[in-house]
Amino acid sequence: MTDARGDRSQGPGNQSDPDSYLHIVEKTDKGIIVRGCKLHQTGMINSHEMLVMPNNTLKKGEEDWAVCFAIPINTPGMIYVYGRQSCDTRKLEGGNIDTGNVYFGGQEVMTIFDNVFVPWERVFMCGEIDFTTMVVERFAGYHRQSYGGCKVGVGDTLIGAAKAISEYNGVGKASHIKDKIIEMCHLNETLYSCGIACSALGTKTAADNYMIDLLLANICKQNVTRFPYEIARLAQDIAGGLLVTLPSEKDFDNPEIGPLVRKYTTTNEAIPVEKRQRMLRFIENLTMGCAAVGYLTESMHGAGSPQAQRIMIARLENLEYRKELAERLCGNKENNDVDWK
Amino acid sequence: MTDARGDRSQGPGNQSDPDSYLHIVEKTDKGIIVRGCKLHQTGMINSHEMLVMPNNTLKKGEEDWAVCFAIPINTPGMIYVYGRQSCDTRKLEGGNIDTGNVYFGGQEVMTIFDNVFVPWERVFMCGEIDFTTMVVERFAGYHRQSYGGCKVGVGDTLIGAAKAISEYNGVGKASHIKDKIIEMCHLNETLYSCGIACSALGTKTAADNYMIDLLLANICKQNVTRFPYEIARLAQDIAGGLLVTLPSEKDFDNPEIGPLVRKYTTTNEAIPVEKRQRMLRFIENLTMGCAAVGYLTESMHGAGSPQAQRIMIARLENLEYRKELAERLCGNKENNDVDWK
Amino acid sequence: MTDARGDRSQGPGNQSDPDSYLHIVEKTDKGIIVRGCKLHQTGMINSHEMLVMPNNTLKKGEEDWAVCFAIPINTPGMIYVYGRQSCDTRKLEGGNIDTGNVYFGGQEVMTIFDNVFVPWERVFMCGEIDFTTMVVERFAGYHRQSYGGCKVGVGDTLIGAAKAISEYNGVGKASHIKDKIIEMCHLNETLYSCGIACSALGTKTAADNYMIDLLLANICKQNVTRFPYEIARLAQDIAGGLLVTLPSEKDFDNPEIGPLVRKYTTTNEAIPVEKRQRMLRFIENLTMGCAAVGYLTESMHGAGSPQAQRIMIARLENLEYRKELAERLCGNKENNDVDWK
Amino acid sequence: MTDARGDRSQGPGNQSDPDSYLHIVEKTDKGIIVRGCKLHQTGMINSHEMLVMPNNTLKKGEEDWAVCFAIPINTPGMIYVYGRQSCDTRKLEGGNIDTGNVYFGGQEVMTIFDNVFVPWERVFMCGEIDFTTMVVERFAGYHRQSYGGCKVGVGDTLIGAAKAISEYNGVGKASHIKDKIIEMCHLNETLYSCGIACSALGTKTAADNYMIDLLLANICKQNVTRFPYEIARLAQDIAGGLLVTLPSEKDFDNPEIGPLVRKYTTTNEAIPVEKRQRMLRFIENLTMGCAAVGYLTESMHGAGSPQAQRIMIARLENLEYRKELAERLCGNKENNDVDWK
Repeated sequence: MTDARGDRSQGPGNQSDPDSYLHIVEKTDKGIIVRGCKLHQTGMINSHEMLVMPNNTLKKGEEDWAVCFAIPINTPGMIYVYGRQSCDTRKLEGGNIDTGNVYFGGQEVMTIFDNVFVPWERVFMCGEIDFTTMVVERFAGYHRQSYGGCKVGVGDTLIGAAKAISEYNGVGKASHIKDKIIEMCHLNETLYSCGIACSALGTKTAADNYMIDLLLANICKQNVTRFPYEIARLAQDIAGGLLVTLPSEKDFDNPEIGPLVRKYTTTNEAIPVEKRQRMLRFIENLTMGCAAVGYLTESMHGAGSPQAQRIMIARLENLEYRKELAERLCGNKENNDVDWK
Repeated sequence: MTDARGDRSQGPGNQSDPDSYLHIVEKTDKGIIVRGCKLHQTGMINSHEMLVMPNNTLKKGEEDWAVCFAIPINTPGMIYVYGRQSCDTRKLEGGNIDTGNVYFGGQEVMTIFDNVFVPWERVFMCGEIDFTTMVVERFAGYHRQSYGGCKVGVGDTLIGAAKAISEYNGVGKASHIKDKIIEMCHLNETLYSCGIACSALGTKTAADNYMIDLLLANICKQNVTRFPYEIARLAQDIAGGLLVTLPSEKDFDNPEIGPLVRKYTTTNEAIPVEKRQRMLRFIENLTMGCAAVGYLTESMHGAGSPQAQRIMIARLENLEYRKELAERLCGNKENNDVDWK
Repeated sequence: MTDARGDRSQGPGNQSDPDSYLHIVEKTDKGIIVRGCKLHQTGMINSHEMLVMPNNTLKKGEEDWAVCFAIPINTPGMIYVYGRQSCDTRKLEGGNIDTGNVYFGGQEVMTIFDNVFVPWERVFMCGEIDFTTMVVERFAGYHRQSYGGCKVGVGDTLIGAAKAISEYNGVGKASHIKDKIIEMCHLNETLYSCGIACSALGTKTAADNYMIDLLLANICKQNVTRFPYEIARLAQDIAGGLLVTLPSEKDFDNPEIGPLVRKYTTTNEAIPVEKRQRMLRFIENLTMGCAAVGYLTESMHGAGSPQAQRIMIARLENLEYRKELAERLCGNKENNDVDWK
Repeated sequence: MTDARGDRSQGPGNQSDPDSYLHIVEKTDKGIIVRGCKLHQTGMINSHEMLVMPNNTLKKGEEDWAVCFAIPINTPGMIYVYGRQSCDTRKLEGGNIDTGNVYFGGQEVMTIFDNVFVPWERVFMCGEIDFTTMVVERFAGYHRQSYGGCKVGVGDTLIGAAKAISEYNGVGKASHIKDKIIEMCHLNETLYSCGIACSALGTKTAADNYMIDLLLANICKQNVTRFPYEIARLAQDIAGGLLVTLPSEKDFDNPEIGPLVRKYTTTNEAIPVEKRQRMLRFIENLTMGCAAVGYLTESMHGAGSPQAQRIMIARLENLEYRKELAERLCGNKENNDVDWK
């Protein structure tokens, strides 16, 4: 969805480089040819197909940018440029401890459409500028709702990691540790509640689809731009300073230095040093490594940056109705709901 | 529900005054006679009937305190002592501006059971200590869920009041004012989402009732112990200092001083001074007056104080499961969910 | 300092009522005659003299509003209208428990200057519009600094009250109570630190006075608009729900109902009921009663509302210098501080 | 200062491995021989000399662990094991953009003392267990004070980077961006104020040194465990999502893909793409890269983890005095400060 955007004070039709926003460069009887770039497409190269939509509301004269379609990711003309992410090259080092996660992971790419052909049967919007606002708001709404599940699941694993490392460190019963884990749970479950609520209040559209509650989806996402950061902060608090001073896994395996490193990172004979090592790396990964990209920065900007949600909250919250409630209750307006004084 | 409790380090059966917790003093063939006191019963004297339950989990030997029943509030032996609340006597002054709310209001009472007779058909629990935990946790759960509706409704009126006063003051379009109102909405809708979520995930019990999600109900209430205070703080920010220096309504009506007071509280000819006066009193009422008792302090302690929810969150959140997620992902445990390495 | 201000989108010289801002109505050879109103003058009627200053920066044509002087508060033409404050009439009820504070207190007034004569030797500014910005910013700076002492002292008493009530309630040793009191201390000492810092970095002016650090004074005050509200929230948490349901002191003294009320508010024989009663009222007073006006709302608006400090922070913080630091460190600008690459 | 600590539920004298805490293994007439490990020594390998102190208070029987000395870092027997830190290997890749900082940086090490000889003239403590508490608390106090300068300086560069990137992105004038930068400044200057305050209230010791205010030093550090995380969160908000999807500098230089990458990261002809690239990497480095170790995790754990400060605050804050203030004001104790009632 997110285009390159060039000069952000100008709309798509007013850029010095028209490709700043993905657009139709040619229409043929078989389909359209598009050019442009989508900057952040979460999980793009793990996918079979991609769905492309306009970045924002469009106005008359910007019909060429009003384009929505789906294509396989190996369509000719597609170019993917790997993004750099914190600690990305650890995956190339050969070990499986310092990466934090042994299983799963992801990588973002810059997605360039270099004169890509899309057949008509795969084109869903082509110039209908009157519908771009609806498409953008609805898609963003669903996307914002989804963060109440996605990031909560990641949060679950970070809470579990905090619990585990506190036990490995021998401080699992300290009241301040327990209280911090409760706080992590509380914040994470609040996000989950927000995700559930915007689904629970969903309504059927004329097309028989279900539409999430748009206001609450924005509330959900807005909280997601805040709480994961605090959950991560608490996880770092519980993990202890070794989180950032622990030697590399190769040092642990080194015949000369390894035994010394192991000796001085042993907390308790019952806890193998490697378990502690792995868990610290897992927490590092989620709070400042490759997975922090997904858990933190993407919580901030994915599905729209915080200010985008605030604009929607301002638009969707009925303030006039609330003002009237106050005006009736304090006597500034007649209160028709009550028949006595 | 909340008993007098006497020495809080001791249970009901261990108090120097056995009446510290409401208990059965006699059983007859017609019913039971009870004695004790419930300290905080929201809306008691606006009600027709009351429902009485044990304060907490009980153990063997404490059967006399395991009592649950419903009676009309005018049952002989019942004594109600009005609580004092901030600004309560303004209601006796004769005006209708300084009270803030023209319509509605409430007052808490201390509810004393001075040897009250309850007929058997109104007794729901009588000595069944094995069920007190379940009764207490479930009732508290429903009650905590309800705060996601109740306090949100009050929050709506305070948001409306902030919107109104910002317009009366002529600053409704300042970006910082608009942003603060968005924040108030965001916090209030987060509470609403929590209320909706614990209902949406409710489950049918064996008795065909629906039971709210107990964990999320505690999450809901925990947020209610925080956000209304911040919403109230923002409302005071928007209201301006006149909130606490405005003269009494009698001064506005005074023939000598009234015209001067009106002159100096006029912001804009189009806004009658009285409208501003009423709205400021409404905000005062909700943030530090009689209604603040319900909006703030009761948000803190009603349905259990914050620590009670944290204990429940610790109990209901499955930390071992989350720990296992982390241990599998970092390689500390075999990951049966994946069949590759 | 704060004038009535009328229509806030207009300056003093543009109001339909010129008295919206206090101004000079006549100059004689003996002095000046002024008219207008100052809305919030903390402690005015406890004072011998008052100092009057312009509300804000003034421009050419607004010379009549550029006036600064000092007069005794009983100067002819002065009119004081008592403000209404939460729970104010409790002071008239005759008891000394429900007021919370037995000693000390205050009351704000609306201060009206009804053609007041000020002799020339008491006039410090009279039309010098070029200096109004400096006078306003400096006075506000000192005033904002002072909040790092004033409100901290009140916070000390609220922390002490939280400690006392937790002991009276028999829960002083609970780890969550202790932690909340530590948090109250932490927030209060942070405010104190801010107060100390802006004095410690004060500098001598050309006139040999000492001027506080203006930026840090605004930082200090901005924190004061936030932390006392959180300290008050924590105090209400620790106090328990009886804070808002406790019967009046007259009920405690009533021969019929008094013994019952005492019976059910006894926690521990060693703690007289009256001590608990007094401490709860003290906390009520500071968090929602008459003293909350000074501890909370005045912390918000006294010496300028929060946005006024933010404007000053934006103005005084050298962002260009900080930008250059970043540009040098990342290589966007040559770094002359280092002679190697 | 921080030893390996082994089983944290046990003191130094009770570990299965006595080297868990650094200790004296032999005394000769020339000096002492020590063994053990210090886990986190900020800037150790950038230093000429190191100062070693006990980890914590010691008791009778633990004299061998009561040891304090200074030695050159190249003393025989010293072993340094490089810690792994987020994005550390970027420094080995040959470029100078993706590292974020072109100038400066650091790296933590595990410091192992493998039977190291220390001559007597370099030994400052050797068995004096009665003084370990004082040494530990005072050193920690100075160290906690220093965070009010150190981390604030880093914060300054991050604020500058946020300002710069907002301008490069063309959104520097948006009111929500300006407000977030003000908030970053406010938080950073609050930390600075705390650092200044504990120095300003320092007192001369009997030895003519100056001792910082110990309570305020702990307040300072406690805030440092919170605010940099929020400042970093706001910086990520302002930076935008490209912070984590930007391709590597090698892709920008690649003859085939480079021109496309540049095309789509151009915002404004006046801003060279490389400037934006460098600034985003700088923010990445400080918020999740190598420098985040120092700005965030070390802010959390350096000079003692947050709970260590809370314990000190509880010990140093005079709660009994504050309790007495409250008891006097509410009438629970006689108030000798006033001679009237």
